Amino acid sequence: MHRYRMIVEYDGGPYVGWQRQENGPSVQGAIEKAILSASGETVSIRGAGRTDSGVHATGQVIHADLAREWSPFKLQNALNAHLKMAGERVAIINVEAASEFFDARFSALRRHYLYRIISRRAPLALEAGKAWWVPKPLDHEAMHAAAQTLVGKHDFSTFRSAHCQANSPVRTLDRLDVTRNGELIEIRATAQSFLHNQIRSFAGTLKLAGEGKWTPDDVRAALDARDRKACGPVAPPDGLYFMQVDYPEVITDRRREKEARDDDDDLS
Amino acid sequence: MHRYRMIVEYDGGPYVGWQRQENGPSVQGAIEKAILSASGETVSIRGAGRTDSGVHATGQVIHADLAREWSPFKLQNALNAHLKMAGERVAIINVEAASEFFDARFSALRRHYLYRIISRRAPLALEAGKAWWVPKPLDHEAMHAAAQTLVGKHDFSTFRSAHCQANSPVRTLDRLDVTRNGELIEIRATAQSFLHNQIRSFAGTLKLAGEGKWTPDDVRAALDARDRKACGPVAPPDGLYFMQVDYPEVITDRRREKEARDDDDDLS
Repeated sequence: MHRYRMIVEYDGGPYVGWQRQENGPSVQGAIEKAILSASGETVSIRGAGRTDSGVHATGQVIHADLAREWSPFKLQNALNAHLKMAGERVAIINVEAASEFFDARFSALRRHYLYRIISRRAPLALEAGKAWWVPKPLDHEAMHAAAQTLVGKHDFSTFRSAHCQANSPVRTLDRLDVTRNGELIEIRATAQSFLHNQIRSFAGTLKLAGEGKWTPDDVRAALDARDRKACGPVAPPDGLYFMQVDYPEVITDRRREKEARDDDDDLS
Repeated sequence: MHRYRMIVEYDGGPYVGWQRQENGPSVQGAIEKAILSASGETVSIRGAGRTDSGVHATGQVIHADLAREWSPFKLQNALNAHLKMAGERVAIINVEAASEFFDARFSALRRHYLYRIISRRAPLALEAGKAWWVPKPLDHEAMHAAAQTLVGKHDFSTFRSAHCQANSPVRTLDRLDVTRNGELIEIRATAQSFLHNQIRSFAGTLKLAGEGKWTPDDVRAALDARDRKACGPVAPPDGLYFMQVDYPEVITDRRREKEARDDDDDLS
């Protein structure tokens, strides 16, 4: 078996989400079909994060095991050709040969997400489906201040979907920054892993802070409540982008996989 | 009659172009339909530029005359509501009351366009239809150097579609800058007006310079040839954005309209 590590970009709009499901086309299914078309091999790939329907990626990472050895260059071109032919909104940005110990999900050290809000009166034409349209003015500095109360190791039960399958609601949030560039407000979140709907729950809650409805203390109180009902409304998937995954430079064994099976379960 | 000046954003992908045509949906038609739905008035609007099918806009400017007086705020909201309901990829970014002397096309002093190239091996997933995918590496400094040979007042017959309806092929190009941000190469073009396909002809030609196939002297020779056949391949519409139109602060009369009927005919 030969293991390949790939960086994947996709427009989440047409898909039921990352994960192969019965109820419609998935990104995982699109890539597995392209691998089958290109190589004749039926494989099951694994992604670093199981993004929801409508969530986009510029840097999802996957691994795939193939019986035949490929040059990474040829494998990338073959997969992209088949994805394009099938009309998929998925592109393979990079392919490299990987160690048998590399696991896209369990080897991940940090995941980086971006949430994009466009704050203006007019609805989105060019960016429809690619950002959250908020017609009210938002104070991004108030949003950033509120976000800082969430950084660190916490029980994030408040910011976790009722459907979240992770065993523990405790996560360590490394970064939650809010910046503005004209009408575009960007929320950047980094953690080893996230709970289901965690970032969209953050975005919906920070919007309340941006409107002046919630203070940083209100956000802290919501966190401390450890209660889903204390969360602001969950922001739509359109604005969420899975940007990047960091891995160790050298991957030597699978200890991390065993130790981290729950905490590395990324479900944003 | 009450004249309104509006800034319009659109995704050119689903449209046959700006101008109302028999052969399919146009941006102009979408806005005129929204005006009819909102006001009951059948109007003919005028845009600052007649963009081709697939060309986008963030700052197209139009004027429309309505018998009824509207608050600009309410008119914007009503038009956006009707555009959204009709599933159009068009949004009205701003509305203001305008002088009867204001003409979106003939009052324009300068038009600003952006052409976006994404230069990378992988096809575009998230940006499909929103940029020109060029899988070869491009030297943006060589492109910028070549572009400078085109700046100024010239006979641009080489860079003009065979279907161009303008009387004169002479235009004054104020700016043609090429910059890079990672895999994104941006070409910014400013002039009072452009010929049909002029910017896409520039982009296709500058790509040859970026690949090292054409020197700045080759680009100058193509310009001097004043011959359509000397042009590089015309770049696709996907990468072209009509960004902004500049008008005089005060519009006092219609002299410009009479004087400039041909030179202000923007057909990019």
